[in-house]
Amino acid sequence: SKTLKIAVIAGDGIGTEVMPWGIKCLEAAAKVYNLSLSFTSFDFASCAYYKQHGQMLPDDWKDQLSGFDALYFGAVGLPDVVPDHVSLWGSLLQFRREFDQYINLRPCRLMPGVRCPLAGRKPGDIDFWIVRENTEGEYSSIGGKMFPGTEREVVIQETVMTRTGVDRVLKYAFDLAQSRPKKHLTSATKSNGISITMPYWDERVAEMAKGYGEVKVDKFHIDILTAHFVQRPQHFDVVVGSNLFGDILSDLGPACTGTIGIAPSGNINPTGKFPSLFEPVHGSAPDIMGRGIANPVGMIWAGQMMLEHFGYKDAADAMLRAIESVLAKGDDVVITGDMGGKGDTKSFGEAIEREI
Amino acid sequence: SKTLKIAVIAGDGIGTEVMPWGIKCLEAAAKVYNLSLSFTSFDFASCAYYKQHGQMLPDDWKDQLSGFDALYFGAVGLPDVVPDHVSLWGSLLQFRREFDQYINLRPCRLMPGVRCPLAGRKPGDIDFWIVRENTEGEYSSIGGKMFPGTEREVVIQETVMTRTGVDRVLKYAFDLAQSRPKKHLTSATKSNGISITMPYWDERVAEMAKGYGEVKVDKFHIDILTAHFVQRPQHFDVVVGSNLFGDILSDLGPACTGTIGIAPSGNINPTGKFPSLFEPVHGSAPDIMGRGIANPVGMIWAGQMMLEHFGYKDAADAMLRAIESVLAKGDDVVITGDMGGKGDTKSFGEAIEREI
Ligand SMILES: CC(C)[C@H](C(=O)O)[C@@H](O)C(=O)O
Ligand SMILES: CC(C)[C@H](C(=O)O)[C@@H](O)C(=O)O
Repeated sequence: SKTLKIAVIAGDGIGTEVMPWGIKCLEAAAKVYNLSLSFTSFDFASCAYYKQHGQMLPDDWKDQLSGFDALYFGAVGLPDVVPDHVSLWGSLLQFRREFDQYINLRPCRLMPGVRCPLAGRKPGDIDFWIVRENTEGEYSSIGGKMFPGTEREVVIQETVMTRTGVDRVLKYAFDLAQSRPKKHLTSATKSNGISITMPYWDERVAEMAKGYGEVKVDKFHIDILTAHFVQRPQHFDVVVGSNLFGDILSDLGPACTGTIGIAPSGNINPTGKFPSLFEPVHGSAPDIMGRGIANPVGMIWAGQMMLEHFGYKDAADAMLRAIESVLAKGDDVVITGDMGGKGDTKSFGEAIEREI
Repeated sequence: SKTLKIAVIAGDGIGTEVMPWGIKCLEAAAKVYNLSLSFTSFDFASCAYYKQHGQMLPDDWKDQLSGFDALYFGAVGLPDVVPDHVSLWGSLLQFRREFDQYINLRPCRLMPGVRCPLAGRKPGDIDFWIVRENTEGEYSSIGGKMFPGTEREVVIQETVMTRTGVDRVLKYAFDLAQSRPKKHLTSATKSNGISITMPYWDERVAEMAKGYGEVKVDKFHIDILTAHFVQRPQHFDVVVGSNLFGDILSDLGPACTGTIGIAPSGNINPTGKFPSLFEPVHGSAPDIMGRGIANPVGMIWAGQMMLEHFGYKDAADAMLRAIESVLAKGDDVVITGDMGGKGDTKSFGEAIEREI
């Protein structure tokens, strides 16, 4: 079978500590399921690289990375060394934009052995996906300030939605819903308050729905939708939202399942024209770096998402089962301190690798 | 003492059913604490009025209402009779805008006897306020569509923040934080993604903080802030946000405390130049209207907020204690079906009135 070409960018802080375990688990799955994976490491997109070169990326980063199928990304940012807006806009947000990764995908899944902040929920109760538009909408660079420094000061920023941008994320979300047993899509809106862009979003959802007769569609205003995430998370299957609403929901969802520290995130270009990027949701965690105690699950789960995205379903399922099984056992000497254990990155990573 | 002049607008659906109990409880508190309250009822801002007159409000509504201190508002909207955007924009949102009610204030409070969707929380653990900007920001009417109906379609909507608009809501929030024992203010932002308006919001917060040396200030990006509401709601004291962020947080907060069906909301003009409006968060609930089974707590609690706003602290405290005491008893024949009881609006309302 074809080789999946993976660029490895470990980045900063605990990114460099969890990455080896992500790779080992992927290699274990590849061995069992006879996949061909190649890994090539890059040292840029890190603050160490910045200190040496005065920029986060080399000038030809796009050429260096374009030939890969995927970027396997650790975490970036060391605010004491480089301000966050420099390190993030200089690396991760460049990848999303320049590689047109217009889908941001995150699972909300109640995992065994994870403390859920909601009362009375058990694994299996919550299992849905957030699909976020990742390139336009509220994250625009148009706008400015008038009368600066005076009482009349006024600041404007534009939200920009294009038919291309909205339709392609909706199509991805409808396809995903269509492929799942419940075939249920929820759209996040606020058309009762935000009276121009959000009614447009609703219009495009209604139009797209015509092509998906089997998919049940509902919509909620973002205010009450956040309430439903807390009150009846079992209602959801696939949730689609604009850049800002998707950003909010894809932190709130994992928070509701207690997995915000271990959840993965895919930044996807579904056309395959550019590489997609898979990363843990957590950051570089400067407070615990260098001690070997970081939880490796987010990194490993991001690798699992990567295999799933490229259609290696059996291997991806095996990785997810391995993660769940190690979490379910909750072995005190295996799991890390953030989950109440006494283990470290190595014990946790090894246990999952062995399970695969 | 001065008479507090209250305009009563019951509106539609269960609004008309819970309003009498709101008034009775206020009258009971007035009697005990020797307050002078006057109530004047209006039939407009209801769909019945719309059916008769073809509009939600009479032309001279502003003249009719301007002399009052407060509007005590039930609920508006019967979507089978009048579309929501007509009934809401034609009444409630007119009041907010024309009476420059630039503060929207909502309590997030874990009440005894209320089922909390978060695990392991008990009354007293969660008790904070959301202060929302209520007139500008993301709810603007500037923008439009180009190339309609074509593949090139693009839709733009502007977020507008003025120094006047931002500073006055921040001042209210800082004053509120200053008046509370914890003196802690949290600002909702998203300056890492929304790169023009949100950094401006942060700037004004930093500027305002200089005048409030005693207030501890922190800020979170809205995505992780929604996660913190679920994971550590005990952290918060006063939370301030823009129109959209405040809208989201003031549904999420009450959802986290299980009180979204009984919470009140104040739409406040702190200058006193125009009347302020107090309403339950719940709507007109057409599905249960006419059956006398609506939960009256939101309406009564809104009255409690009104007294508190006008400085009648003892009477307001007594009302809150009465609500809490009846909720804590959770008497099956008193409380309504939504809280698991067999009571009705009358039994529930009467119990609270008696307790006061
Ligand atoms: C009905 C709607 C426009 C309104 C708002 O978003 O302001 C509501 O959600 C609220 O919070 O009162
Ligand atoms: C760092 C920030 C700009 C980013 C975003 O808002 O997109 C982050 O919250 C995310 O979700 O990856």
